[in-house]
This record gives sequence, C-alpha cells and structure tokens, in this order.
Amino acid sequence: MQFQVTDELIDKLQYLIEEKNNEELLLHLEEVHHADIAEILTELNLEEATYLVKLLDSEKTAEALMELEEGVRERILENLSAKEIASELNEMDTDDAADIISELSLELQQDVISEISDEQHADDIVELLRYDEDSAGGLMAKELVKVNENWSVTGCMAEMRKQAENVTRVHSIYVVDDKNKLKGRLSLKDLLTASSNDNISDIYIPSVDYVNVHTEGEEVARIMQKYDLEAIPVVDEMNRLVGRITIDDIVDFIKEEAEKDYQMAAGISEDVEADASIWRLTRARLPWLILGLFGGLGAVYVMKGFEEALANYVELFFFTPLIAAMAGNVGVQSSAIIVQGLANDNLRGSLFNRLLKEIGLTLINGVVLGVLVILFGLIVGQPQIVSFTIALALITVIILAALIGTFVPIILDKQGIDPAIATGPFITTSNDIFGIFIFFYLAKTILGF
Amino acid sequence: MQFQVTDELIDKLQYLIEEKNNEELLLHLEEVHHADIAEILTELNLEEATYLVKLLDSEKTAEALMELEEGVRERILENLSAKEIASELNEMDTDDAADIISELSLELQQDVISEISDEQHADDIVELLRYDEDSAGGLMAKELVKVNENWSVTGCMAEMRKQAENVTRVHSIYVVDDKNKLKGRLSLKDLLTASSNDNISDIYIPSVDYVNVHTEGEEVARIMQKYDLEAIPVVDEMNRLVGRITIDDIVDFIKEEAEKDYQMAAGISEDVEADASIWRLTRARLPWLILGLFGGLGAVYVMKGFEEALANYVELFFFTPLIAAMAGNVGVQSSAIIVQGLANDNLRGSLFNRLLKEIGLTLINGVVLGVLVILFGLIVGQPQIVSFTIALALITVIILAALIGTFVPIILDKQGIDPAIATGPFITTSNDIFGIFIFFYLAKTILGF
Repeated sequence: MQFQVTDELIDKLQYLIEEKNNEELLLHLEEVHHADIAEILTELNLEEATYLVKLLDSEKTAEALMELEEGVRERILENLSAKEIASELNEMDTDDAADIISELSLELQQDVISEISDEQHADDIVELLRYDEDSAGGLMAKELVKVNENWSVTGCMAEMRKQAENVTRVHSIYVVDDKNKLKGRLSLKDLLTASSNDNISDIYIPSVDYVNVHTEGEEVARIMQKYDLEAIPVVDEMNRLVGRITIDDIVDFIKEEAEKDYQMAAGISEDVEADASIWRLTRARLPWLILGLFGGLGAVYVMKGFEEALANYVELFFFTPLIAAMAGNVGVQSSAIIVQGLANDNLRGSLFNRLLKEIGLTLINGVVLGVLVILFGLIVGQPQIVSFTIALALITVIILAALIGTFVPIILDKQGIDPAIATGPFITTSNDIFGIFIFFYLAKTILGF
Repeated sequence: MQFQVTDELIDKLQYLIEEKNNEELLLHLEEVHHADIAEILTELNLEEATYLVKLLDSEKTAEALMELEEGVRERILENLSAKEIASELNEMDTDDAADIISELSLELQQDVISEISDEQHADDIVELLRYDEDSAGGLMAKELVKVNENWSVTGCMAEMRKQAENVTRVHSIYVVDDKNKLKGRLSLKDLLTASSNDNISDIYIPSVDYVNVHTEGEEVARIMQKYDLEAIPVVDEMNRLVGRITIDDIVDFIKEEAEKDYQMAAGISEDVEADASIWRLTRARLPWLILGLFGGLGAVYVMKGFEEALANYVELFFFTPLIAAMAGNVGVQSSAIIVQGLANDNLRGSLFNRLLKEIGLTLINGVVLGVLVILFGLIVGQPQIVSFTIALALITVIILAALIGTFVPIILDKQGIDPAIATGPFITTSNDIFGIFIFFYLAKTILGF
C-alpha cells in the first residue's frame, strides 16, 4: 500500500533527466508525496537532484527539501540562486523557512530574504531568526488561526476560513483580546456546535497551556507530552500570542535529542549519520578515542607504580582489565539511569538516599560477582588470599564507580551541563584509572608487597 | 503559568484525606488536569492515592491512571474491586482500557470485562486484547469518526457530530463504503467549505495513508513521522477500517523505544526507572555485569597464556587495560552508528563498502592514536620496538573492533534480533578478549618472547 522508491523508479527518472523529458518527469512525480520526493532526491546525484528541484513546483519541493538530511540539502541549495531559494521559502511555513535560512551563509541570507516576495512572510521569518534554535521561539511557526474574543460566531467563521487557507492543519483556534494577548482557545467542535448568535467570549475555553518564546525546547516537549497536546501557543514577554508549536516538530525534536544522548553514550560527539564523510566521522569519534587513550596511558602509569607486585602477585596484573571493565560497566549503568531520570524529570527524594540505594544495589551485585571470582580462583588453583583480595577490591571499585556514575550527572545537571555526556567514555575512562589505582592500593594493603 | 504540584499542596491534601474532608478535596482538585492528578497520586502513599481515586470522578481518574508509571498503577488497581476498575475503564478510550486490562491477572480480566456496562465498549476492548502489544492493532483505538461515501454533506454533518461526542480529538474523518472498507478521508476544513448539496463521494480525498493491524509499531512510527501524520487509520486483512492510531501514542512509543535502546547500550536489560526497587534494578543490571565478569576472566586466561612475556616485556601487561578499553570504545562507536542507521532506515550502499569505509576511518584514527602511543614511549623511555609493537597492535585491534561493531548489528538485524543489543556490554566484552589476544599474539610474533 505504501509508495516505494524502487531502483527501477530511480533508473527511470535518471534516464528521463538525462533526456530532459520534463513532461514525462512531471507526470511521474505529480502524485508523489513530498517525503518520497525527498527520498528520491537523496538517491540521485547532486546534478540530477538540482535538476528535479528546479523543474518541480516549489510547493512540492519546498516540503521535500525540509525532509532532506542537512548535508544533502545544503549541497542542493548551493546550486540554486538566491531568487530560486526565495521561491522555495515562499512556500514553506515560517519555522521551516527560518531553519533553512539559518543554514545559509550570512551574506546569502540577506540576498535570499530580500528576494522573498511576500513581505509579511519575510518579516515573520526574520523575527524567528532572532530566537535561539532550541527555544520555543526557535521551534514555533507564525502560522496559526486566531480570533478576537469580541467577535460573533458568524463573523468568526468567515474570518477563520480565510486564515485557515495559510495553515496546513488547524489544531486549535486561539482567542486573543484587542491587544493580541492570549485569552484562551476554541475547538473546532465547539464552533461547529455553537449557535450563530453567540459571541466568542461566551463559548471559548479560558484555560489554555502555553509557553514563552524563551522556554527551552526540552521543557516544551515535556509539557506537550505530559498533557498530550498537539499544538501549543507561544507568547512573548507581554503575553502576546506570537506563534505556535505543533507536535510533528516536537516529535522530530524528541527523536534528535534521544539520538544525541545515544551517540553521546557511545562516544560520538557530533550528530553524524552512517553516511557522513570519513572526515566528519573522524571529527566526531577521534576526540573521545584520544580521551580514552590518555585514560589508558594513565592506567599504565598507575600500574608502573605498583611494579613491585610483579615479584609475588603477578595475577593482579592479569585481573586489571577485568577490574577496569567492571568499573566502567557499573559506572555507565548508574549514570544512564540517572540521566534518564533527569530527562524525564522523575527523580524524587534526596541525593543522599539515592547514593545510599546505589551503594546497597551495587553491594548486592558486588557480592555475587565476588563469589564468582573466588570460585574462579578455586578452579584455577589461585592462592585464596589473592582471590579474596581481588573480590574485595572488585566490590570496592564498583561501589565507587556507582557513586561516581550517580553523582556526576546530577552535578553536571545542576551546573547546566548536559548530563548525558557523563554516560560516555568520560565516565568509563575516569573509572578505569580510579578503579585500577584502588585495586592495587587495596591489594598492597592486604597482601603487603 | 504552569500548575505546580508543590509540597504544600501535597501536605494539604494529605491532611484533608486524613480528615476525610471530601468536600474540600473535590474543591481543590476540580480544576486540576489529569496529568497533574497523576503526579499527585505518585507523591501520595498507596492508601491515600486509593482514597483519592475512589473519591474523584472516574472521568478524571481514568485519564490520570493512564499517566501513572505501571508499578504505581498496578498497586492502586489492586486496591479496587472489579466493579470499580470497570467504571474507570468505561471512561477510557478503548486502547488505554485494553492496555490496563492486559496488566491485570487473567482471572481479574474476566471479572472486570463482565462489569463494563457499555457492551460495545467491552466488545471493542476484547477485540484489541487479541493483538500483539507492539503491533498497529495493539496501538490503535476503536474511537474514530467515519462517514459513508454515499452520504450527503448535510446528513454527514449531523452524524459526524454524534460520533464526535465519543472521540476526544477529531483528526481526520475517514470515508468508508457500505462494507466498511476504507476509501479515503475528509478534512474538517473541506467539510466546512463544501456546499450542502455535495455528496461525500464528490469531495473526499481518495488517497490516504493507512496501516494493517499486523504492521509493527516501529513501522507505524516511521510512516507517521515520515509523512507528518497526526493520526493513521488501521485496516484488517479485508481492508475494513477497524481503528486508528494517534500521534500522542506514537510519541510515547518513540520515547520508550529510544529509552530501551539507550538502556541497552548502557547494559540495562529491562525498562527500569531510577525509582524502581533494588530487586528490579538488580535483575536488570546484574546479568550484564556477570557477562562482563566472564569476559574479564577470559582475558585473565588469555594473559596467563602469554605469561612468558613477563620476563622481558612486562610493559605489555601495563598496556592491556588500554588495549581492551580502546577496542571497546571503537566497537561501541561503530555499532551505535549502524544501529541508528538501521533504526532510521537510512543505511544505503553495500555491506562491503561500509566495511571498507569503516576500515579507512579506523585506520586514520588508529594512526593518530599510534603516534601518541609512540610519543608516550619516547617520553617514558620505553624501548622503541615495544612502543612500535603496541602502536601496531592497537591499530590492528581497533580495526577489528570496528569491523565487529559494524558487522554484528547488521547480522542481528537480518536475523530479526534487535540490533541495539550489540552496542551493550556484549560487544565491549567480546572485543576485550579478542583485543587482548590479538595484542599479545602480535607482540609475540614481533618481539619473539
């Protein structure tokens, strides 16, 4: 049932583009959804994609451009003139247009804006460019349907139909006063069932959730999700209605945030796709590897400091990778749970209780792991005092790792730093060094080498 | 602007519950949104929460129950009779009601269903229980607005208003034929602007995205996101319209999936919250730690096998944690990128090219890291041949780790296993052992100990 972008279709289109058979091309692509056009543009080479964008109606290509990955879009836009870009922007909602413009060079931005024919549209876009990308102001669109509280239902219907022309989807109708201050909302259902003698002020719902232009994107996402909203109005400092955010933008936002956290946890610092260039992938990955390398070199140093153990307790050196790995694993587990708790805003109770719980939990896990280590020692015929030392050190090390894993994201969050960074190689690396040091230090104390 | 659940409010409510001052309680909670009621229920103890649920109108508590974390909800429901649960379910949309019922014991399910007063509602719920939780059938609700293609616009308006009573939000009006087969959709906007002489068949849009009851949740999420849909109709094997899925359920689904992947990457196997019991947290975390421990013990064994290197090349043992950590880091990076590419369905090109690219990328990273290792060797006065051997082994090990990280998730995905599992301790652990073995094997070959 779903339209499929097949290899045959791509071959066919490439042939038609080469032949410059515009008529056939338009016929083939007429009924195709813009999201599928985007997929087609990704499959074509840059020249072919540019050809199609220039050929097709801006109404269709504008939306397709929005669906493209940033890299692909940038390359296509570089091949278009300021005027051509402006005609695409004319067809976009203001929030999308602002996103695209902000990707252009400053010089080109000026040129493109001056070429936008609809002056109101251009004004709106310029306004949106002022806000931080991840704030409600940066996420909102100017397109919305609003009515004045003093209007009658009949007058309102006419005006509303006019406004609805510019709005892809009418979620809610917002009610404002003469000064454009947000008063409440109307549902289409209410309007349908109202008598035509009513005034808007008689039928509107005065309670409405809204956010301020400066509200952070994450907070907007949290509110919309908590209250199952499909759109939320945005007001400025004077409580004037200036825009609205729709759920589809929030879905994209949530997904991007989740992907960023996931990549951060895996030690990838930029938002890269599998198909990014080797250079971008290196830039995203190498810094974390270098951090890990320094951690490893630090561990080398620590072990050198306990070199005298080689004489009688060489097993300790065989166990260091195990100790380091367990410290890393436990630290990542602890921090991942805290990072998610912070993201979902459902951490309750005091930090002290949380640390206490983490100690208890890790103690249980540690005892199980310690017993396994002692069993292993019995099987391979290791001196019991050594096995016991390793088990004890393991428990100590993972409790410390759990504390660091719990503590660090909470501290980072309080400092206004994204706590997700704590689940990455950062915590693994520091836990490695700490873990190995404590391991040998404890061993030295007990075994006395 | 946002309603806040403060400590004072909770204290006040607890006092009122103790006093059994129902009048004041109702007055306080009358205007409170169900999502905030849910937050309040979480803050109260079980007895107090149950008291409130019994006191408040089912219409409000039904929705609040849906917002609760599963554990809290289960405990509250255990305190209610089958009849009380049924009266909550009566107020819920069918999809929510089915979710709740599936959490109950089989015996209680029977009792509750037989107590649901609205027979059609009960029938619908029973139908939904048949589908797999993560399929379109399991995600959909029966509540929707549909019209027959043969109706007139005027007749349709009246019928629609009636249907809309039962539907929280009208997203789209679906058009069906006499056999209930899905034909297309109508927008409210179209209906508003249509002339009353028109027939539905004249004005409806025959192209409509839909999914089958058996479509997987992830596929539904992908389609709704790709096409920016706010609701999608669900059809059965005969193409009959049986339900619809709304975007708010998909938002929850996307978030849950992202959290699952994130936790998997961190070595946590069940969906646990920070506030879960120690027992549940142990169950989620310990298995991965034991896996890691076995990996570490395997590494001990490998190193024992190269014990003869201790005589002349003890540095090698100091470097094993570094080698193991780097193998783990690179493997996780590689697999995370592939897992996301698979999830977003944007992996293009052959597996061979992908592996080639990964080798090239890791070679670049490896050379940088290798040079750093050699520099470190110069600084600490390590024999150059040893530094060189370690650098070379490091490059070899991380290339292998990158290949495993790329290969394993693709293979798992082809086998129908969630590839996200590959970014967890699973890949780190196997890379540790492989890495350490290759490290010593190479060193033995070059240094000849």
